[in-house]
Amino acid sequence: MDEPTPEAGEILVDVAACGICGSDLHFYTEGLHGDAELPVTLGHEVGGTVIQTGDGVDIEEGTDVVLSPHTPCMECWCCKDGLYNLCTNLNATSAKPGGYAEKVVESADNAITLPDGVSPEDAAIAQPVSVGLHAVRESPLGIGDSTLVVGAGPIGLGVVRFAKSTGAGPIFVSEPQESRQEVALELGADVVIDPTEEDPVERVHEETGTGVDVAFEAVGHQETFNQAIESTRANGHTTVIGVFSGEAEISPQSLVSHQRSISGSTSHQLGPRVTKEYNAVLRQLESGELDADRYVTSRIGLEDVVEDGFETLLEADNEERKILVCP
Amino acid sequence: MDEPTPEAGEILVDVAACGICGSDLHFYTEGLHGDAELPVTLGHEVGGTVIQTGDGVDIEEGTDVVLSPHTPCMECWCCKDGLYNLCTNLNATSAKPGGYAEKVVESADNAITLPDGVSPEDAAIAQPVSVGLHAVRESPLGIGDSTLVVGAGPIGLGVVRFAKSTGAGPIFVSEPQESRQEVALELGADVVIDPTEEDPVERVHEETGTGVDVAFEAVGHQETFNQAIESTRANGHTTVIGVFSGEAEISPQSLVSHQRSISGSTSHQLGPRVTKEYNAVLRQLESGELDADRYVTSRIGLEDVVEDGFETLLEADNEERKILVCP
Amino acid sequence: MDEPTPEAGEILVDVAACGICGSDLHFYTEGLHGDAELPVTLGHEVGGTVIQTGDGVDIEEGTDVVLSPHTPCMECWCCKDGLYNLCTNLNATSAKPGGYAEKVVESADNAITLPDGVSPEDAAIAQPVSVGLHAVRESPLGIGDSTLVVGAGPIGLGVVRFAKSTGAGPIFVSEPQESRQEVALELGADVVIDPTEEDPVERVHEETGTGVDVAFEAVGHQETFNQAIESTRANGHTTVIGVFSGEAEISPQSLVSHQRSISGSTSHQLGPRVTKEYNAVLRQLESGELDADRYVTSRIGLEDVVEDGFETLLEADNEERKILVCP
Amino acid sequence: MDEPTPEAGEILVDVAACGICGSDLHFYTEGLHGDAELPVTLGHEVGGTVIQTGDGVDIEEGTDVVLSPHTPCMECWCCKDGLYNLCTNLNATSAKPGGYAEKVVESADNAITLPDGVSPEDAAIAQPVSVGLHAVRESPLGIGDSTLVVGAGPIGLGVVRFAKSTGAGPIFVSEPQESRQEVALELGADVVIDPTEEDPVERVHEETGTGVDVAFEAVGHQETFNQAIESTRANGHTTVIGVFSGEAEISPQSLVSHQRSISGSTSHQLGPRVTKEYNAVLRQLESGELDADRYVTSRIGLEDVVEDGFETLLEADNEERKILVCP
Ligand SMILES: NC(=O)c1ccc[n+]([C@@H]2O[C@H](COP(=O)([O-])OP(=O)(O)OC[C@H]3O[C@@H](n4cnc5c(N)ncnc54)[C@H](OP(=O)(O)O)[C@@H]3O)[C@@H](O)[C@H]2O)c1
Ligand SMILES: NC(=O)c1ccc[n+]([C@@H]2O[C@H](COP(=O)([O-])OP(=O)(O)OC[C@H]3O[C@@H](n4cnc5c(N)ncnc54)[C@H](OP(=O)(O)O)[C@@H]3O)[C@@H](O)[C@H]2O)c1
Ligand SMILES: NC(=O)c1ccc[n+]([C@@H]2O[C@H](COP(=O)([O-])OP(=O)(O)OC[C@H]3O[C@@H](n4cnc5c(N)ncnc54)[C@H](OP(=O)(O)O)[C@@H]3O)[C@@H](O)[C@H]2O)c1
Ligand SMILES: NC(=O)c1ccc[n+]([C@@H]2O[C@H](COP(=O)([O-])OP(=O)(O)OC[C@H]3O[C@@H](n4cnc5c(N)ncnc54)[C@H](OP(=O)(O)O)[C@@H]3O)[C@@H](O)[C@H]2O)c1
Ligand SMILES: [Zn+2]
Ligand SMILES: [Zn+2]
Ligand SMILES: [Zn+2]
Ligand SMILES: [Zn+2]
Repeated sequence: MDEPTPEAGEILVDVAACGICGSDLHFYTEGLHGDAELPVTLGHEVGGTVIQTGDGVDIEEGTDVVLSPHTPCMECWCCKDGLYNLCTNLNATSAKPGGYAEKVVESADNAITLPDGVSPEDAAIAQPVSVGLHAVRESPLGIGDSTLVVGAGPIGLGVVRFAKSTGAGPIFVSEPQESRQEVALELGADVVIDPTEEDPVERVHEETGTGVDVAFEAVGHQETFNQAIESTRANGHTTVIGVFSGEAEISPQSLVSHQRSISGSTSHQLGPRVTKEYNAVLRQLESGELDADRYVTSRIGLEDVVEDGFETLLEADNEERKILVCP
Repeated sequence: MDEPTPEAGEILVDVAACGICGSDLHFYTEGLHGDAELPVTLGHEVGGTVIQTGDGVDIEEGTDVVLSPHTPCMECWCCKDGLYNLCTNLNATSAKPGGYAEKVVESADNAITLPDGVSPEDAAIAQPVSVGLHAVRESPLGIGDSTLVVGAGPIGLGVVRFAKSTGAGPIFVSEPQESRQEVALELGADVVIDPTEEDPVERVHEETGTGVDVAFEAVGHQETFNQAIESTRANGHTTVIGVFSGEAEISPQSLVSHQRSISGSTSHQLGPRVTKEYNAVLRQLESGELDADRYVTSRIGLEDVVEDGFETLLEADNEERKILVCP
Repeated sequence: MDEPTPEAGEILVDVAACGICGSDLHFYTEGLHGDAELPVTLGHEVGGTVIQTGDGVDIEEGTDVVLSPHTPCMECWCCKDGLYNLCTNLNATSAKPGGYAEKVVESADNAITLPDGVSPEDAAIAQPVSVGLHAVRESPLGIGDSTLVVGAGPIGLGVVRFAKSTGAGPIFVSEPQESRQEVALELGADVVIDPTEEDPVERVHEETGTGVDVAFEAVGHQETFNQAIESTRANGHTTVIGVFSGEAEISPQSLVSHQRSISGSTSHQLGPRVTKEYNAVLRQLESGELDADRYVTSRIGLEDVVEDGFETLLEADNEERKILVCP
Repeated sequence: MDEPTPEAGEILVDVAACGICGSDLHFYTEGLHGDAELPVTLGHEVGGTVIQTGDGVDIEEGTDVVLSPHTPCMECWCCKDGLYNLCTNLNATSAKPGGYAEKVVESADNAITLPDGVSPEDAAIAQPVSVGLHAVRESPLGIGDSTLVVGAGPIGLGVVRFAKSTGAGPIFVSEPQESRQEVALELGADVVIDPTEEDPVERVHEETGTGVDVAFEAVGHQETFNQAIESTRANGHTTVIGVFSGEAEISPQSLVSHQRSISGSTSHQLGPRVTKEYNAVLRQLESGELDADRYVTSRIGLEDVVEDGFETLLEADNEERKILVCP
């Protein structure tokens, strides 16, 4: 592939690392969704260094950055209302040719400058962590509120970290994998529950008396969705982040009679508002509150992305959390 | 049955009217739920006149009142937080021996004094209308917001009335019964949709471009629940009032990817906060904005409650909306 | 002056009416503020008919419209967050040469199409009425909430109309002018108070027991600002719309010990979000809930704007509310 | 004085420590306010051990507790709405004979049990720290929001601690005293500003570009009130905690034209809701996030409360923050 060149408003970035995400796996195993267009760009969790700039860009060459992968259209009603992550016409993966590359071209508007002391390699985790942060910010969770996080993958762990940062407590986490339970505890969880051994809903009601103030669903299964809802108190809230492949059965009466609420959270703030959430994550990487090594389990070369990346993550009992591809 | 006598804090009310509600029908046809206790009190939409007062009551005899039917325990955490309608130990029908009687005894705290010009008979509709009002107040609906109300029974019609009173517009209503469609239009709907003839979701998206700001589910079916959700815009909200007998399948992804939200609404404010919502309804009865005759389709005697009440309402094509039992 | 010509994205509007506003008077009597730039454009409440369109405009010639007078910069952080009315670089009067003219040129983005049945002359009041609507929407006022509106000029009357439309009640209005008190009652006020005869704060507390849920300040004086705050209940809210020429003394302790809150409201939604609030006003003009003749006291010719417009409004005891200049 | 005896519902507490608060000083120097009643009870920041219980109390003797000093009436509309700290008839200092005593009697409802590892002496700071926590919870401050705290006394420092715990940043603190600036930095401040050397409003705007999302006033002066307001961005919020002795001049236009808001915060949650906020503070004392020794500058005996307590705190250049009286 030829080296890409940045046009006006674009930057060329020397990739330090690109994280592998579940949606990449999905493309690898199942191919294209009905409405996806070819060629598909894979890899959207990119940290790197600006090495060339197009016209009208005022980032200096040599600047370390992390890239936000989604570009809103700026024309739809969501964009007009400032709800850029809900853009009805979102360019979901705008880096060319995709993050699993030596170098990528991106719009300069999607680059967030790193603070000193955060390496572009570590910064690659800012994207998935921002998804967790955004979910916490969209939820009513506040200081002193109790919470349950269902699922402690990269997304759920981001929720745990920022639930802790929002002063919530006690923080319950339901997650079967032991190594992830441990990281959850390191990142701020007070109680971890193995859902294969005990019922998280019962446990949470036992310990809180009322149910939790706020629950987060970060798995994407009917069972965990219901666990999240049922674990909340009367008037409590559930924020859903998990991506579901189909329908799920719930009990509407459980919402009605206790005035419970549910809302979805998607991605993080984008476009003209992209900086705020990324900066909150980067500040925690800088201060050490967030340690990239608690997320990242392997760093592999570009040539190994299929074998040591996709294939490893597809193995049933792998204990990977986040694999970084470092060209 | 002996005439009941009011104890301290109670009042004896001469019943002017008691509305028949779906939950009474349910008891009539299906008997008791597993956890209901005998004897069951039927009839909880009561307007009447205070004819005797117990110790420590400062309502004068002769005062016209409407009765709120539910008494919170004042001890559970919901009561302590002022969330009386979510009381975990609610006395759901506190009037003795129930509203289908000449006279009932109730706690004086559950009596709301009528303004001049509202008859105790008309006031009997204040309870179901308050359920609709409460749902609107619990929702984010505001002036200039578009809305869809699914179902135009007594509850849905109350939602329509107060959606109009909250300055919402356009107000779409989906309802198969023609006579109810007509009343919906009289009470403030801008567009009525017959869901047996066209898809309300499509129609709403066609007319609004984006979907509605807020939808209300006032039927209690899986299909209508999904219609409500799918008719909302990105970041839109659905308030569920319908009582569901079992599970319902929804598409969680539809919440996640558009950051939509759902919440339940139950009853109206109770106990120490009971007055505010009832007064808002009574003010509309007084001003004529709300006309009891738009709700009430029949007034029957006490001796006819089974034949002309329950049995009529159970007929498939009856066009009743609200039957008042007037002793 | 030469007839203006619409450039790309602009429209030429044949003015049906332009309302005279207090800020025009201010320029007339006191000249320019320190940072205003010459030439100043006067007249920003314009209704009319599109008679010519620039390139790329998709409004048809002959369309009746009302014009929003302010154009946001689309570049500042407020614009990026969708807070267009808070634009830090707002073009406050974008119609050229100003509304007191036969014809004006405006950006097509600032034109809101009229529904059938609303004349462009009547539509001229939509701008000041939208200021009142926006204030109500920015406030926490909801159905059944009590409120005090201090000042019943064109702005305060708009607040009264939409407080009524939001289902608030009782609505108290404090206003010295008798003719304005009368219009306030017609538009939805429940109680009018003459502040030269009785203390509105005392009256409101007497009638509500607690103070009102929400108060609106629509005068711009220290005294009325304090009346608004002191009339609210514990945890109550005051929305300030009045423009103040200097400082005002308040009692912070009155906020602290009762956890009261205050917020300001300015203009109405603008730019890409301009339509929603105007449409809510236009719908009321169409339905007759809002009657332009209740606002407008005189209609004068273009040549009389100084003598019968500005000078009349400056007379101490004039009973004008809104004067329309109709070329 | 005779040893007090607990009546039904009361407990007798062996006082470990009672903090001296500014309001005690006020009584010491200026005597009674017009409407205060004799005898005045001084000392309301009490940690200790339950040594005797009245009838119907289910706290065991020997339990370490911290006492909430205020008892709501349970009858007024605020109490009925669950707004106990706004009770219109609050018993502001219910411990008998007051906290500067060997032993005090309090209602058992005002006792919060300490977690293991928090000493009753350290727990004495939970009351003033809860005031700061409550202010943060009442404010819109969230993760990633920038904030300015004006004044770093015991109250302002509590705000800083919990602003940090809510994930806010950057956190600016304006405070003249160097030793308090240092503690602010230890508790989570990012930038401290000496208001005698530079203008905090200018500095904050310089560093943020827009102004902060939320400001807190924790001094009680007109100057600092205005600094808080002016430092916020458009649509930003100021929470006022400082107690003001009189009026303060502000610029209402600064609220109106930027849609800024202000609200007051008083005390912490009380009565039936007292536990949640205290528990959040106690959890931080347990985890070490909050270190009592960063607050407490001196511990003195009961006999020294006047000389080493009140008189020391009244000296102009004293560097005390919190003096604990330990009988
Ligand atoms: N909304 C958005 O914007 C957004 C963005 C990115 C990702 N997502 C979605 O968020 C979800 C989480 O993403 P991720 O990257 O963290 O995925 P992940 O690595 O698959 O993490 C999910 C975790 O949940 C655990 N789990 C499985 N069944 C469970 C159960 N019954 N109870 C509790 N935990 C259970 C899994 O354990 P095992 O591995 O042992 O099964 C795994 O550790 C996915 O659905 C993903 O598609 C959403
Ligand atoms: N949350 C609460 O506190 C509370 C309190 C009281 C009642 N409720 C519940 O609220 C719901 C409404 O109560 P209600 O008294 O108004 O009941 P209702 O009289 O049965 O009204 C329901 C209406 O929905 C219509 N409907 C049926 N299928 C529909 C569809 N697919 N699309 C649109 N409309 C449809 C019905 O028409 P047909 O008659 O032609 O079928 C009927 O007019 C019930 O579920 C009730 O149990 C809740
Ligand atoms: N925030 C915004 O975006 C915005 C936009 C437009 C206008 N404004 C401001 O909003 C305010 C109202 O505008 P307007 O056009 O309605 O002005 P207006 O016509 O001057 O109305 C003010 C009304 O308040 C009355 N009033 C005077 N003293 C009073 C008192 N002590 N108590 C109660 N009422 C009193 C006046 O009566 P008299 O005539 O008898 O004195 C008058 O009827 C002005 O300050 C204006 O600058 C704000
Ligand atoms: N709302 C409530 O429920 C509640 C409860 C308790 C207390 N309060 C009030 O909250 C306020 C703070 O209480 P506290 O106990 O922390 O009082 P404090 O110890 O007097 O603290 C105030 C701090 O502000 C500093 N300060 C003075 N002028 C300043 C300026 N221009 N800019 C920045 N900082 C300045 C003071 O420094 P110097 O010492 O050098 O002057 C002092 O360090 C008081 O007004 C108190 O009455 C409110
Ligand atoms: Zn878009
Ligand atoms: Zn209860
Ligand atoms: Zn702008
Ligand atoms: Zn009280």
